[in-house]
Amino acid sequence: MTKEHIAESFRGLQLLICKGLEELDGGASFQSDAWKREEGGGGFTNTIANGALLEKGGVAFSEVYGPVSDEMKKQLNLQTDPGTQFYATGVSLVLHPFNPHVPIIHMNVRYFEMGDAYWFGGGIDLTPHYIVPAQARLFHEKLQAVCDRFSPSFYTNFKTQADHYFFIPHRNETRGIGGIFYDHLSEKNAGLSKGQLLEFALELGRNFVPIYAEQANLGRELPFSPEELKWRNLRRGRYVEFNLVNDRGTKFGLHSGGRTESILMSLPAEANWEYGFVPEEGSREAATLGLLKKDISWLEM
Amino acid sequence: MTKEHIAESFRGLQLLICKGLEELDGGASFQSDAWKREEGGGGFTNTIANGALLEKGGVAFSEVYGPVSDEMKKQLNLQTDPGTQFYATGVSLVLHPFNPHVPIIHMNVRYFEMGDAYWFGGGIDLTPHYIVPAQARLFHEKLQAVCDRFSPSFYTNFKTQADHYFFIPHRNETRGIGGIFYDHLSEKNAGLSKGQLLEFALELGRNFVPIYAEQANLGRELPFSPEELKWRNLRRGRYVEFNLVNDRGTKFGLHSGGRTESILMSLPAEANWEYGFVPEEGSREAATLGLLKKDISWLEM
Repeated sequence: MTKEHIAESFRGLQLLICKGLEELDGGASFQSDAWKREEGGGGFTNTIANGALLEKGGVAFSEVYGPVSDEMKKQLNLQTDPGTQFYATGVSLVLHPFNPHVPIIHMNVRYFEMGDAYWFGGGIDLTPHYIVPAQARLFHEKLQAVCDRFSPSFYTNFKTQADHYFFIPHRNETRGIGGIFYDHLSEKNAGLSKGQLLEFALELGRNFVPIYAEQANLGRELPFSPEELKWRNLRRGRYVEFNLVNDRGTKFGLHSGGRTESILMSLPAEANWEYGFVPEEGSREAATLGLLKKDISWLEM
Repeated sequence: MTKEHIAESFRGLQLLICKGLEELDGGASFQSDAWKREEGGGGFTNTIANGALLEKGGVAFSEVYGPVSDEMKKQLNLQTDPGTQFYATGVSLVLHPFNPHVPIIHMNVRYFEMGDAYWFGGGIDLTPHYIVPAQARLFHEKLQAVCDRFSPSFYTNFKTQADHYFFIPHRNETRGIGGIFYDHLSEKNAGLSKGQLLEFALELGRNFVPIYAEQANLGRELPFSPEELKWRNLRRGRYVEFNLVNDRGTKFGLHSGGRTESILMSLPAEANWEYGFVPEEGSREAATLGLLKKDISWLEM
């Protein structure tokens, strides 16, 4: 199981997902932007804009390596010997649909090596502008099904981690209905071989388009009002806040000299802010706010 | 010179500025939102929206105090004795105009006490969507004139600090044309008494509306195209990035339990992002990008 094999598998996953999303969208294609990193490695940032379903999205593959920089050590809170090398490869994606009844989605799978250690990380989480509990349940059922094929503890463990990771403390809101999140997973702590851990990441990736297609098709034909668009844009504002203020990956990337355009492809085409906005009591917007909480058992909704 | 006197002066300044801005805007009034802080103090967050000139803005006064929390120590990188008290009061404002030919502006003046120490901080900086060097020069001339009435070293020193503070490393761009920024100013290092330092802060505040009125009146009647609005919204996206990723005040506030709505009143009503956007060579947008650099001598433009 070489790192080159892992990188090739991830690159293949990126292409598979882009192809599936183009079919799902039906109106636009991905544009691929190839880039090199001076210190070692590079990537392909594939983006889509103004489609039939998706207003803005990106599916990025990268494979970067080289000496661990001082800024990386600071950001990762690491003490490593001088000359320590790192290697990182992964696929990361965020999709912002037009229709407020279709959720924003994010997925990331990644593999990291530092010196002799390696680990996998990743996650998928869903951010509906309007939470529909039955649809949230479908999403979590699909993730549980993938997790259960690898370990009976994965779904419960990784669902809890997602609730804590995708949380906006300054708003006291979760980013959405969560999903799964895992990090620092290796054969030492997962009870699975390195090959099985790669397969878990790939299986999540292969299931991504069917899972999102189900969510998207439930909402994409629904009509929407200017008020619903306003709410969508305010929720996108929260998405921007999470990504720029709270997301560890974004902060690490921006502060350690990552490629800014690739990191910030996660931001929506348009986001709004309004001072002190509070939705009307009893409205669907207020109901959504009431569900942006940790530790909701979506499988039982 | 009691802290209560300083707080009252700042509250008066807030009201003076709001009154002046309402006259300048001509279409909307400020709404005042009074709030209390559980651990001590409170404030008045005055906001304006959908005016004739201003799309969204806020002028906030606060006076907060109490024991130094662990999170404050962490954010300020401080080691203080258990039970140390802090006191902070200030006025902070950000204005986002509709017309892309009118600049965004920010001002802040503040006073801080911790244990036996005190200091003043503050700044004014301008973020034109389109930089017009002659107008940038006017802005810096006005700031220099206020600074020069207090110390011959202030303008040069504080202009350099603004260039470094209002900088977006991940974009390698300044936020705008800078202005002045100062911090940790006391009689120990400023060559001025505490009363003179307060007067400096107040004098900046009293000059704020005339300075912004001059800038606004140069642009508010100019026609603009959809392309110019698009550019305005992309520049607002950078403003959001600076405030959420780089601004120490915002990060400190959000991470130490500050009042989120008051802190984030600085964000625009609407901001846009587009992957890999690069303005056409030779365009006015490209010219503006070329001027978003540190160490430009605006007085000589």
